[in-house]
Amino acid sequence: MCGIFGIVGHGEASNLTYLGLHALQHRGQESAGIVASDGHTLRAHRQMGLVADIFTAPVIENLPGQAAIGHVRYSTAGGSGIKNAQPLFVNYAGGQFSIAHNGNLVNATELKAELEAEGALFQSDADTEVVMHLLARSKQPTFEARLVEALRRVEGAYSILLLTEDKLIAVRDPNGFRPLVLGKMKEGAYVLASETTALDLIEAEIVRELEPGELVVIENGVLRTSMPFKPAARLGRCIFEHVYFAKPDSVLFGSSVYEVRKRLGMQLAREQPAEADLVIAVPDSGVPAAIGFSQASGIPYDVGLIRSHYVGRTFIEPQQSIRHFGVKLKLSAVRSVLKGKRVVVVDDSIVRGTTSRKIVKMLKAAGAVEVHLRISSPPTQWPCYYGIDTPSRTELIAATHTTEEIAKYVTADSLGYLSLEGLGTAVEDPKRSTYCTACFSGQYLTDKLSQSAGGATKLSA
Amino acid sequence: MCGIFGIVGHGEASNLTYLGLHALQHRGQESAGIVASDGHTLRAHRQMGLVADIFTAPVIENLPGQAAIGHVRYSTAGGSGIKNAQPLFVNYAGGQFSIAHNGNLVNATELKAELEAEGALFQSDADTEVVMHLLARSKQPTFEARLVEALRRVEGAYSILLLTEDKLIAVRDPNGFRPLVLGKMKEGAYVLASETTALDLIEAEIVRELEPGELVVIENGVLRTSMPFKPAARLGRCIFEHVYFAKPDSVLFGSSVYEVRKRLGMQLAREQPAEADLVIAVPDSGVPAAIGFSQASGIPYDVGLIRSHYVGRTFIEPQQSIRHFGVKLKLSAVRSVLKGKRVVVVDDSIVRGTTSRKIVKMLKAAGAVEVHLRISSPPTQWPCYYGIDTPSRTELIAATHTTEEIAKYVTADSLGYLSLEGLGTAVEDPKRSTYCTACFSGQYLTDKLSQSAGGATKLSA
Amino acid sequence: MCGIFGIVGHGEASNLTYLGLHALQHRGQESAGIVASDGHTLRAHRQMGLVADIFTAPVIENLPGQAAIGHVRYSTAGGSGIKNAQPLFVNYAGGQFSIAHNGNLVNATELKAELEAEGALFQSDADTEVVMHLLARSKQPTFEARLVEALRRVEGAYSILLLTEDKLIAVRDPNGFRPLVLGKMKEGAYVLASETTALDLIEAEIVRELEPGELVVIENGVLRTSMPFKPAARLGRCIFEHVYFAKPDSVLFGSSVYEVRKRLGMQLAREQPAEADLVIAVPDSGVPAAIGFSQASGIPYDVGLIRSHYVGRTFIEPQQSIRHFGVKLKLSAVRSVLKGKRVVVVDDSIVRGTTSRKIVKMLKAAGAVEVHLRISSPPTQWPCYYGIDTPSRTELIAATHTTEEIAKYVTADSLGYLSLEGLGTAVEDPKRSTYCTACFSGQYLTDKLSQSAGGATKLSA
Amino acid sequence: MCGIFGIVGHGEASNLTYLGLHALQHRGQESAGIVASDGHTLRAHRQMGLVADIFTAPVIENLPGQAAIGHVRYSTAGGSGIKNAQPLFVNYAGGQFSIAHNGNLVNATELKAELEAEGALFQSDADTEVVMHLLARSKQPTFEARLVEALRRVEGAYSILLLTEDKLIAVRDPNGFRPLVLGKMKEGAYVLASETTALDLIEAEIVRELEPGELVVIENGVLRTSMPFKPAARLGRCIFEHVYFAKPDSVLFGSSVYEVRKRLGMQLAREQPAEADLVIAVPDSGVPAAIGFSQASGIPYDVGLIRSHYVGRTFIEPQQSIRHFGVKLKLSAVRSVLKGKRVVVVDDSIVRGTTSRKIVKMLKAAGAVEVHLRISSPPTQWPCYYGIDTPSRTELIAATHTTEEIAKYVTADSLGYLSLEGLGTAVEDPKRSTYCTACFSGQYLTDKLSQSAGGATKLSA
Repeated sequence: MCGIFGIVGHGEASNLTYLGLHALQHRGQESAGIVASDGHTLRAHRQMGLVADIFTAPVIENLPGQAAIGHVRYSTAGGSGIKNAQPLFVNYAGGQFSIAHNGNLVNATELKAELEAEGALFQSDADTEVVMHLLARSKQPTFEARLVEALRRVEGAYSILLLTEDKLIAVRDPNGFRPLVLGKMKEGAYVLASETTALDLIEAEIVRELEPGELVVIENGVLRTSMPFKPAARLGRCIFEHVYFAKPDSVLFGSSVYEVRKRLGMQLAREQPAEADLVIAVPDSGVPAAIGFSQASGIPYDVGLIRSHYVGRTFIEPQQSIRHFGVKLKLSAVRSVLKGKRVVVVDDSIVRGTTSRKIVKMLKAAGAVEVHLRISSPPTQWPCYYGIDTPSRTELIAATHTTEEIAKYVTADSLGYLSLEGLGTAVEDPKRSTYCTACFSGQYLTDKLSQSAGGATKLSA
Repeated sequence: MCGIFGIVGHGEASNLTYLGLHALQHRGQESAGIVASDGHTLRAHRQMGLVADIFTAPVIENLPGQAAIGHVRYSTAGGSGIKNAQPLFVNYAGGQFSIAHNGNLVNATELKAELEAEGALFQSDADTEVVMHLLARSKQPTFEARLVEALRRVEGAYSILLLTEDKLIAVRDPNGFRPLVLGKMKEGAYVLASETTALDLIEAEIVRELEPGELVVIENGVLRTSMPFKPAARLGRCIFEHVYFAKPDSVLFGSSVYEVRKRLGMQLAREQPAEADLVIAVPDSGVPAAIGFSQASGIPYDVGLIRSHYVGRTFIEPQQSIRHFGVKLKLSAVRSVLKGKRVVVVDDSIVRGTTSRKIVKMLKAAGAVEVHLRISSPPTQWPCYYGIDTPSRTELIAATHTTEEIAKYVTADSLGYLSLEGLGTAVEDPKRSTYCTACFSGQYLTDKLSQSAGGATKLSA
Repeated sequence: MCGIFGIVGHGEASNLTYLGLHALQHRGQESAGIVASDGHTLRAHRQMGLVADIFTAPVIENLPGQAAIGHVRYSTAGGSGIKNAQPLFVNYAGGQFSIAHNGNLVNATELKAELEAEGALFQSDADTEVVMHLLARSKQPTFEARLVEALRRVEGAYSILLLTEDKLIAVRDPNGFRPLVLGKMKEGAYVLASETTALDLIEAEIVRELEPGELVVIENGVLRTSMPFKPAARLGRCIFEHVYFAKPDSVLFGSSVYEVRKRLGMQLAREQPAEADLVIAVPDSGVPAAIGFSQASGIPYDVGLIRSHYVGRTFIEPQQSIRHFGVKLKLSAVRSVLKGKRVVVVDDSIVRGTTSRKIVKMLKAAGAVEVHLRISSPPTQWPCYYGIDTPSRTELIAATHTTEEIAKYVTADSLGYLSLEGLGTAVEDPKRSTYCTACFSGQYLTDKLSQSAGGATKLSA
Repeated sequence: MCGIFGIVGHGEASNLTYLGLHALQHRGQESAGIVASDGHTLRAHRQMGLVADIFTAPVIENLPGQAAIGHVRYSTAGGSGIKNAQPLFVNYAGGQFSIAHNGNLVNATELKAELEAEGALFQSDADTEVVMHLLARSKQPTFEARLVEALRRVEGAYSILLLTEDKLIAVRDPNGFRPLVLGKMKEGAYVLASETTALDLIEAEIVRELEPGELVVIENGVLRTSMPFKPAARLGRCIFEHVYFAKPDSVLFGSSVYEVRKRLGMQLAREQPAEADLVIAVPDSGVPAAIGFSQASGIPYDVGLIRSHYVGRTFIEPQQSIRHFGVKLKLSAVRSVLKGKRVVVVDDSIVRGTTSRKIVKMLKAAGAVEVHLRISSPPTQWPCYYGIDTPSRTELIAATHTTEEIAKYVTADSLGYLSLEGLGTAVEDPKRSTYCTACFSGQYLTDKLSQSAGGATKLSA
């Protein structure tokens, strides 16, 4: 998954981009990059690691100019490694341009083969590079026209920022898979970001989300907008952004992420009630849903697991391995809360089931007499081809096992998932007609995938 | 403040010490160190920074042996810098020894002057070095006897671990200011740590806390205990460990930290009620008290502030400075929760008041119509001389201002502190006869300070 | 300037490449890179800095395979920065390939414009990328045929190594500007390197230099050779390699670099004799010529300047700046040798004159009564367009000043350059018909430049 | 071995100390440190590594003040590691002081035991710490008087710089083992350094060497001198400084190091002639003696071995190990010079013989038909206890083997050492009555060692 940020019209463009990327750090921790334009020349800095470690004062000073775009990356398409760090940056016939992409193109392989057959060189594994080649090869007279022509050929999820010497361009794909929000600073600079939390940090006013299929150009302080693509058959806003990915203080697709998550928990309490003494969360992502579950069920909310402030670092595993080592470095159980209690523990999703299993065992080892695992989304059964980094179907436990089997595997006394209908209710779209729920339903929205996967039968059926 | 950890009788002594220190990282982030003994030679590694960054596999491999002690440090006595990183490590007439100290000696300055007059050299600013000199100068025949003679001369707070070529020694001062807990691993190794959370991580069984004034020697797999010091007039267990310092999953001085904090919040709700729509915490330290406040008051608990997972890093401040910059990098307000609401916000303490002020302003900027600040401890009016790093009296806002003045400064609609009595109730010692509450009451327990500060009148009186 | 190295058919290909690059480190200190093939996949590591700092054991382990190419770079065409570090590495229609280039293409700008007009993207500033695009766009059926078609379009200096999944290819341009030598290891592996010193280090047998215009393919352990290009009008082996650039223990263009340099000094003594008490060198590059000068003139050779072993690091300049600061960190004068003496000091060339001036002043400050500067090559008056990093004409002191003016500027008592004829004699090609001497004569050999610069009049004429 | 530097009375004291240490880097590459005084407080920075890597601009800025001392270290007494990095720095009854020591104390072990018995703590392995303890324990009224009392107790080699808040003190032991030279800057600042090369770099005027047994105090811009120690029975200036250790452009013990080395080579040619075609040096240390040998013998000097500019870095050894790997990374043989020639190769000394063996083999592999190894000093048979880092006797090849045996081991056609008499002649002290030659003669000069080792019979006798 990735996060993108751009700003134009501000003397501290690269510094604000770095702060914006920090606010979006939860969207990608593998690498980060900024490309800035001083009106004549683009300069880039990309590196593996965290935003605050990469962008020191001397690095920022070497990125002068009034406009900049930035990117944080957790690998999706393409492997990891510095060559895939974005924003990508090239020279072409029209000068220089740079691109930062959140999403994933589903027809990149075919387009890449076609381009290579025409002599194109690919220097990264990123599907994003396909867009750059298509743009450079276009015979259209302007940069925007070239870009539109290029994007008309691609299929999939893209919220994209582009920077040339003199303009910043933002585009959101016609399905609107990934978020992209426009803001404005008091001094007049325009800002674009994956989530509102980045705008809040730098005190930009939130103007609005870009429309699905909208293309915005900001040049000489003027913003122009257009809808140059054929509208998608229907919207496909990523529901998993609400379930897990986005930061809870963000407002996304018109709804507060925090409130959606609380409603998921409330609905979950209604659908999957449990006899218990207390409700706890798997912190931090499970907290809002756990509070919602508590409020709807009347079972008191408490803190049964403490999240370490020092996770995310690598550790040397002792030879006499500690049980649940990985989870223990991240989470500690609060014995006094759990001892002798029947506990509802709320998490956002189960991927492989291994972490859930460790958590349930930790809770029991700390004295919980019953552990009822409640998941604030439906079973994750299908891989995402639109930008979320999920494993293949065979690794998704819910693709190959029933809920009962999973409950047994994770050693929970009971396991309950939210229904698809309940999920729709929480996002105030009961029929899920404006959201993509493919990871839960297998209903992919793009032509290519809806044909191949649409007819797939559930492996565990 | 500091954290200490020791283990003896385990083939992976330094590796487990490193994990133990990681679990105690919240007690000190400035530097960390481990000294290990292979039975003949002590080896040390000390460095500025975080445990997980310092102790890489090659570093751990260079610390072989069955016994090790470790230390994480946030400066108290003595300035910062690598020379003050512990464990300290010296050669003396009897061989080698190393020491890791949590606490602060109140008569270190006098003893240091006396020792220097006799020709002693001091290579750090740490009061701990005084103990080493006294020990080395003792004419007693054994290491323990030397240590006892040395410690009889010092006054103040100390939980200390010492490592020689062939034994591990642990001592807790007669007032019992700082915690120190004994554990045992399944394989038979003894473990000592500042807090139980470190024992939990490495799956050591918690045996018991050391008694105030107890000295434990572990040698050749055998543990001997003694009470070699004159008992203190009364116990002085640090109440601030419960209020703020310890990790909530630890059991400290016989009580669960988490439960104490919840009771602080419950008592606070009784003493300082507020008309409000919801209760939020300043995360993460204020969470248990906020939940307690919610349960006692019946006002719903919710999450109004999100803590970033990437705090603790340094940032380049933009020139057009963002309001409340420092706080914003750490905390984000959840607008949807706060908008139009009367909010009780619970924090553990107020030091200078500047952060509280920023938080209150952030909450109002995010839409809260009333902000009622509730503090789960009494006003912090006196510096700690027993190991907590508090600023001087003149910087403590509560030492020089009334509660009304503070409320006005932090721009809260109301401000309420917990009473000293309430604090005692929460730790189940209503008269506070076994706890040190000097930071709140000015009643210092050691001879030297009780004379000087005991008669002091409150500056703001 | 750059150095290249390649090996195929050896289980430690990347390790030997790293040693080979270390031996070629004098050819470029800005960045280094290795690309290795395991038969299926190419893996790359490129970084700013020195070979021995970049290629640690874990980095080498991540470059498995029986074949590898490497590159050390000091910027020529294209600015500095990681994006220009070689070997370059791309995917194209036929799979993956990598390229390492020593030299400079004189028609890169025109070709780049043409390629960009067709939609090509350029990700580096390197002229080398032009070759990659031409190759990828070729419609020829095989990799070699594509490469030949590509190289037929370029003009200039190139010794190139290419690596695909299954073969190593080496090419030398028809003029033979840059060296490239073939070697063979006892175990059968083929090796290619810019200079023989790299083969000596890894104990490869020196087979022969590649012919100008020769293309060698090594695949499945078999070496095929061909001469696919139109022969150049005449050879243009870079005479400056002998004068300064190559390592003295190398054998280059059939002659020992060390012996050539000694002969340069001998001829210089004949052409530009001096009345003096001793001959010293500007170390280390001036040493062979100084010994030759001494032997031919009978004036004793001695060491008047000591080179620091710790140069090449950056230094903080004191505010009260030390005279000749930069030179002093590199060179120390030996007072006892110089005091009261008339000194001949031999250097290989003068570029801007500033360093020579500092050296002459240092020698006089150390007691030399006369300083006679002798240069073992003719005046450097023309920039190199074939791969040596020389400044523009206006910065070349000999392009704008007479020898007398230069002598005065550098404060030498006399200044003597070697003649072009003498230079030819030393390389055993009195008419210079097989060497490029453009930096001294302005006679550029490639079509494009011979037209433009051939008619240029000397600025200082 | 170590190098020391001090300056007082200059606004850029720490910056000039860093430059001075860089000039002395050849005296120690393991660690470096600077302690500076701003008149009130001493500040230290010590680190493993090279001067230019350690002292970056921010580090220098944190060392303000008009006075500073610095140290470069290669371990002698005491093992390696950061705790032994100097200058050492302590607090004592009189305030703060720091010490930088070049040399080695022969009675440190006894004094250490005595001090430890009195309760002293030792934090390093350095014998230097003994001096600090003795000083701190002295009951004398002034710092100088304490220092004198302390130094009267020690025996051995010491050139020492001490820094207090307000003065810089320099002392040289009564035997004068190690050099120490006084200089003065134009602006009036006094400078002290191990060698004149450091004064030359910062353009300080060389005033004079300190006398053996002299103590100099510089305070408030005034220099006071005294001779407070009992004169030594005789001088013992280290002859190995001239043979190998010092930088050739330095003037040491009144003689130019370079000239002494040339005279060593001339005398060697007379004592150990050889029939040969050319004389080469093992660079760089053997160069002056090789030139002297050439001049005295009339055999032409040439360059047969090239020293890499990139040595001193660690390397990954290939599994199929290259013959003479270590030497090959440092030295390359020049085939064209050596081929078919009878070669005299001059080196300064032989320690274990392994490197000499590799060099002789390299020369033969490069075509030399005869290799005559000539050593510009007598056989190294005895360890140095005065500060040079030599291995134990059993590892010194000349302590256990005859010259013939060594010649055979190193595979040389002949081997000749300089005689002790010849060595004396070269330093203009034929009877060696002012030099220590213990490493060659076994005649140790200090009481303690002259008794124990004086009567020793040569192992190989």
